[in-house]
Parts: sequence; C-alpha cells; structure tokens
Amino acid sequence: MLHEDPICAVSTPPGRGAIAMIRVSGSGAVALCEPLLRFPRRRRLSSLAPNETRFARFLDHGEVLDEVMVTVYHPPHSYTGEEMLEITCHGSTYIQRRMLELLTARGIRPARPGEFTERAFLNGRMDLARAEAVADVIAAESAAAHRLAMAQLSGRLSLRIRDLRTQLLHFASLIELELDFGEEDVEFADRDELARLAGDLSATLHRLADTFREGKLLKDGIPVAIAGPPNTGKSTLLNALLQEERAIVSEIPGTTRDFIEDRVTLDGYLFRFVDTAGLREHTSDTIERIGIERSYQKIREAAIILLLNEGNDDLETIRTRTREVAKMLDKEHQHLVVVINKWDIVPAEKRQELEKGLSREDVPVLFISALKEENLDRLKETLKEQAGLQSLGEGDLLITNLRHQQALLQAAEDIDRVVAGLHVGLSSDLVALDLRQAIHHLGEITGEITTDEILGNIFKNFCIGK
Amino acid sequence: MLHEDPICAVSTPPGRGAIAMIRVSGSGAVALCEPLLRFPRRRRLSSLAPNETRFARFLDHGEVLDEVMVTVYHPPHSYTGEEMLEITCHGSTYIQRRMLELLTARGIRPARPGEFTERAFLNGRMDLARAEAVADVIAAESAAAHRLAMAQLSGRLSLRIRDLRTQLLHFASLIELELDFGEEDVEFADRDELARLAGDLSATLHRLADTFREGKLLKDGIPVAIAGPPNTGKSTLLNALLQEERAIVSEIPGTTRDFIEDRVTLDGYLFRFVDTAGLREHTSDTIERIGIERSYQKIREAAIILLLNEGNDDLETIRTRTREVAKMLDKEHQHLVVVINKWDIVPAEKRQELEKGLSREDVPVLFISALKEENLDRLKETLKEQAGLQSLGEGDLLITNLRHQQALLQAAEDIDRVVAGLHVGLSSDLVALDLRQAIHHLGEITGEITTDEILGNIFKNFCIGK
Repeated sequence: MLHEDPICAVSTPPGRGAIAMIRVSGSGAVALCEPLLRFPRRRRLSSLAPNETRFARFLDHGEVLDEVMVTVYHPPHSYTGEEMLEITCHGSTYIQRRMLELLTARGIRPARPGEFTERAFLNGRMDLARAEAVADVIAAESAAAHRLAMAQLSGRLSLRIRDLRTQLLHFASLIELELDFGEEDVEFADRDELARLAGDLSATLHRLADTFREGKLLKDGIPVAIAGPPNTGKSTLLNALLQEERAIVSEIPGTTRDFIEDRVTLDGYLFRFVDTAGLREHTSDTIERIGIERSYQKIREAAIILLLNEGNDDLETIRTRTREVAKMLDKEHQHLVVVINKWDIVPAEKRQELEKGLSREDVPVLFISALKEENLDRLKETLKEQAGLQSLGEGDLLITNLRHQQALLQAAEDIDRVVAGLHVGLSSDLVALDLRQAIHHLGEITGEITTDEILGNIFKNFCIGK
Repeated sequence: MLHEDPICAVSTPPGRGAIAMIRVSGSGAVALCEPLLRFPRRRRLSSLAPNETRFARFLDHGEVLDEVMVTVYHPPHSYTGEEMLEITCHGSTYIQRRMLELLTARGIRPARPGEFTERAFLNGRMDLARAEAVADVIAAESAAAHRLAMAQLSGRLSLRIRDLRTQLLHFASLIELELDFGEEDVEFADRDELARLAGDLSATLHRLADTFREGKLLKDGIPVAIAGPPNTGKSTLLNALLQEERAIVSEIPGTTRDFIEDRVTLDGYLFRFVDTAGLREHTSDTIERIGIERSYQKIREAAIILLLNEGNDDLETIRTRTREVAKMLDKEHQHLVVVINKWDIVPAEKRQELEKGLSREDVPVLFISALKEENLDRLKETLKEQAGLQSLGEGDLLITNLRHQQALLQAAEDIDRVVAGLHVGLSSDLVALDLRQAIHHLGEITGEITTDEILGNIFKNFCIGK
C-alpha cells in the first residue's frame, strides 16, 4: 500500500479541554512511538494486545510530558486499516502542540484533513459514499441531519447505488452480447424491451437525484427569511423558539451559535432564520435601498418566508405587504407564511376584522403572541408543513451531497442518450459507449472509479484528525 | 463511599471535532449503560475486561445513534477509583448532546466541573495538591507553566509539605511530652533548642511562600507593558516575536489568542504583552488623560516595562521619557527596559550620539530593528533576565497557587507565635495550640484537612469532564 507513511493529528475538537486524543496511523507507528512512551510494570508499547488501553508516561527528552492512556490497534482491525495508536492526554494546548512536535520529530508527519478516513477508503475499510458520510455525521446539528448522515454511513446509499450499477452492468452485457454477434446481424436483445428498461432506469436515477432538494434542506437546515417591518417582535419570537433548545444546549459549554443566522432546531429539524432587516414599503434613500435589496436577496434564498406583522397593523397594510412579498417568490419552491404577532393585545373587534379579512388570502395566516408564547406550536407545525418534510422517517433514501446528485444526473443523461440511441436504431457499440459512461458515473459515487482530484475535493473539507 | 452516584460528561474540548469522549463514573455505571450499547459478536458491556476497548453501537431508542469505541475500567483502577466507562464517539455537537440526554435519562446525572478529579481525591487516588495540579496542567500554555504543573501533579509539592508536617508533628510531640509532665515541672525539651528549631521551620515556610511570586509569573505569564509613543513599531515587534511560535501553533487549528493581550512564548516562558496605548507627554484633553491613566495602570501591573522609542527620536526626549516612566515603578518588582527601534534607518552619526548618550542610564538599553529582525535575540534574553527567571530548571520547588501560599503564610505565622511564646516562657499547652494550628494549615494544602467550602472553591474552576 502506498498510503502507509505514518501520520498523526489531534482528533478531538481544537482548544483546551479535560482530555484530548492524538491519533497515529501507518506502518511502523508502534515502533516509532515506542521510545516516547514508558509503561509501568515492564509493559512495552509493542507488547500491548490489540484493543488494550494502558496507562503510560509520554516522554519529552527524558522528562514526563504527560500521563496518558494508550490504545493500540493492529491492522486490519483499525479505523484506517493500518497500525494505529490512540493516545489520550490532558487537554492543554501546550501538551497537544508538544506531542505533535515530538511525534513529528520521530518522522510521523502531521495528517492532512480527513486523511485517516481517506486511508480507511483507500485500504478498503469503507466505500467513498460512506467515507463522505463521516464528515456529515460530524457536521450534523439536528436529529434529521444526523439520521440522514448515519443512514449513509451505514451503507444504505452505497447499497442502492451498487444495485443500480448491477442493473446497468446486466443491461450492458445484453447490449455487448448483441455487439459481439453484430456482424451476423443477430439481435439477441429486443430493442424495444431494452429501451423500456433504460427508460425505467433513467426515471429511477432522476427520482433519486431529485431527492437532493429535500436532503439538502434536512442536512443544511431550512432557510427561513423573516420579513416585515421593524418592531414586530422578531427577536422575541426567535427567543421563544430557541427557549426549549437552550435548556439542552447549555449542558455542553461552548456549543457555538456564531452564525449571522439564528439556528433553531424544531422537533429535530434545523431551521436557519435570517433577518431581512426592515422591509420598508417606500424609500428614496440610497443606503436604505441597498439594505432593502439585500433583504430581497435573502428572501429569494429562503425556502420559507415568514412575514411578521403586528396585530395593530391595518388590514390593508398587511394585505399589501403579503402580496408584495408573494409576487417575489418562486411558487414551486418557496412558501409564504403570514404571522400576526402581539395578538394578545389586540381588541376583540380588531381581531374579528383581521381574521375575517385575512381568511381570503391563499397563504397560511397565523395569529400568535411571541411574548406570551401563544400559538407557537401551531407556528412550528406550519413551518414543518411548509418545508415539505413529510417524507422523512418513511424509509426513503435521500441524497444530501451535491457530488452524488451530479453523478446521478450525469448517469441519467447517459441513459437518456441510450434510450434515444435505441429508438433511432443507433449501432450497439455507440449505445454501449453511453452505457459505460453511466456505469462510470455511478461508480464515482461509491468510489469504484475515482481520481486524486475527486478525493482531494472530498477530504479537504474534513476536520483534521478524522 | 458517598460520592459514587453515577455521573457523566463530555471530557473533550467543547465544540465539533473528529472525535469526542464521554466519561461515565460511579456505582452501577456499567449496568446503567448496558442497554445503550450493542456490541458485535455477542460481546456485552459487562463482559468486557478492564482496560479493553471495543467497537459498539450506541442506541437511541433502537436506532443507531453512533458507532463508538468503549473502554471499561474497574475500581479501584480508574481515574476516579470508581467503576468507569469511556465512550469515544464522532465529535458532532448533536451526538454529544444526545448521548448526554440518553445517559441522563438512564439516571446518570451530568457531572459538575472537576467532579471526576474531586472523586479521585475523595476516593484517595490523589491528594488535594495533586488534584489541583490537574487543572494547572490543562491550563498551562508554556513549557515553564507546564513543567511546574507536572511537578506538582507528580507529587513533589505534596512530598515537601508532608515532610514539613512531619517535622512539625515531631516538634509537637516534644512540646506535648513537656505538657504531660508539666505539673512535675520537668522540661524534656530544651526551650532554646525548641525555639531555634521553630525559627528554622518558620524561615522554611516563609521561603516557600515567597516562591509564589516567581511561580505565579511562570504559571500565568510575565506581564510586559509596552510603553512609548505611537508608531514606534509595537505591532511589528510583536509580530516578529510571535513569528517562530506561529509556525508551530498553526498546526493545531483553533489555538485561540482571544485575549486583549498578546501572548508570546519565548523559549518556553509565557510573556503577556499589553499595549499601554500612546503615552503622550503633555495633554489637556480629558479623554486622552483617561487613556493615559489607564496606561499608567497597566504599567503598574507589569513585571517588565518595555519603553519603545524610535531611532529618530531626540536623545533628550528619550531620556526624559525613560526617567518619567522609571519614577512610576516599584524598583524591587518592576524592571524597565529601554528599546530604540528602527535602528536600521538611523544614520551612523546619530547612532553614536544615542549609544553614547544612553550608556549612562542605569537601565538596559537595546538598539533593534523589529522590521529587519535585528537584535531580537538580545531582546528576548533581556526579557528573560529582567523577569528574574534564573532559578527554573534548578530543581527548586515553586508555589504557583494562592491557596497554597496563604496556607504556608498562615502556618508560618503560627510558628512565629510559637517562637515568640517559647521566648516569653508561655506555657506549653498554649504553645501547643499554635503548633496544632500550623499543622492544620499545612494539612489544608494536601487535603488531610478539608471542608466542603475549600473543595467547592477548588473544583468550581475546573473544566467539566475532568
């Protein structure tokens, strides 16, 4: 194997903590680390059994750098499939840095991002779609994103792709059989039958590729733009939605929310709320116009637009706003939800007028009080409905990776050309060419076919240490 | 034991990473976690050997939450001395949060900061001074701070304190012997001899307590105030000093420098540079005066004051500045270093004038070019000299903890009262009272004597998960 030069990295999150873990993988990892580790009771690193975890002292030129726990894994029963060590140390930044220096000085080079997982792939421990899922598992912030990533890690997508590929290979064997006997002018395969089969395959590929829209929403979160004039209670609403979640999140210190967006997980789905600032109706101020243009941009990128109004607003004002926003939207992929906030302080008479007046709008209208937390459950339900997330949990396979979607679409195009070729009576060898392209493109997903460039693009986005 | 109710925590640094570790400790930890973990090959959590690390699936209501590695430790051979589990999972924030939720739902409560180490102390796995060192090891940013913390973790301070305590106990037995036979008016111990012995002990205690100043500098870093007018090249100088370090630091992503100070490690010592903003000589502007007052405050807190000038400044200006700053300083604990920057662009004639003119100042004067990195090694040497860090590495024991210093000083005061009491012929029982106080105070350091309040104060500053 070409990829066995020993590498090392800190695999735990960056920064200071109680504990950090350093991983070492590659040929000679144990022998190279042996002089750095002193065990009590005459134990030696090389005498540890596989999967045995023992106390040791990590040495820095004779001095004890740290007291550590060491686990050894023997090939091929390790994450990378190679000789591996996991060293658990105190999580000071000094110790982490110094250990890397001492390991590097022994000829163990710092790992590139994702290099451990890349080796797991190159050494046949997992296929490429599963390797990619590792990064998704780590990045997942919501139950939905996590479940999708775990499904992919478990190999569900890979199985489906292999199944499709097998079908294509079978199909190709029929075509190539025809090719072999081509000169004798014998058609083994019925061309209409073949065309129908190809049409089915194309439809399947397109259907799978189309799940990417939903998969992406679940993986990256559903973008919700909050539109509406200032002081309609946007931050009160966000805080009310965040409330439940905060109680849980606060148990892990440092769970960061350093995004411009407010990320809220509602019943396991991640929603990304973006403020569109004030959507003032009329202005001649240039700077303000720029702000409004930005707001429109955010609205165009959202899957759901939450138009927030006050209960005290005029019926006509609310209607005009609703229509102005509605006409900006891509009806197929964007959904408008009108919210009337501060409902608790609206007099009964005004309530009736608004309820009646807005019942004729063809978008959902909700009356809430963010402050009093009234009707928020209904709002959450509406957000989930509008995001179109009905299918999750029904066992559907969703594509979450742009690379996979593109490969599927390319394969589908190849097959579409096969269908067309069969219809116009194209010669079998030309049809076979398109078919082989389709097989090639499917193989890219699971990594049967790969290039350094593809691998480079995939693993550069991993964390270091994975 | 009272402290065995099972607890859990994420022990790796907060946030997202390749890998995270969750620790569980306490009675029944294995039995409580058993239903959450499914092992291949009919393995069960309860059948794992101590120190055996195995692959398992962590279950969330029947679904696989994550693929993990699990290590089991049996009492008393664990960090806490209790039944322990270490679960290594993918480092997503979702998985970390969800695992804690599932563990908590099984009756394993979230650990308080430092609770694992507190249990290690309460279960006799380490004394209090060593337990405190754990937090210092994790916090150490420089080689010097790290070495001090490791020395304390290894038990060097504890040994020294126990040795002193033994001497006091021996001394007490002499006094108490006298006390027993007091009515017979027999003096077993020569009072002068006893007074001399007590004096020696007092001196030792004072000496040890006095190492706190240096210990603190090494542990927390040496505060250096950079004074001098704007545009003398402060940031160029800091960048030049940081340069070497950055190359190393950059290997660990996220090694934060989010301090108002610039922290630079020079040859293993941490220096904390604080900018004193512009120290303009004369101003009538109120706001500017406030700024200058703040600069003075920073100067008063510094161990070293680096007065930065330009090579183009007048000799007299530099001299005046030097004297104005010098007269603000506490000569015993603060050291002034005068630096003339941009030396590379100073004409030869001017150079001679400055060199000659400044040679009569009784503070170190250095001529450097931060931009061209000229004479920076000399500057580093000077900083280390002025910090008075000669003793490190000579095997001296340094106190780094205010609590220890105070206990030592209290013990020293007790002994001073013993000395005085012996001199004025105080009765043995009153002398013994002070002596017992001294023994008590020393016992607080290693935890022979402790209170919930002391423990609470110590462990509340630990990370969660340690």
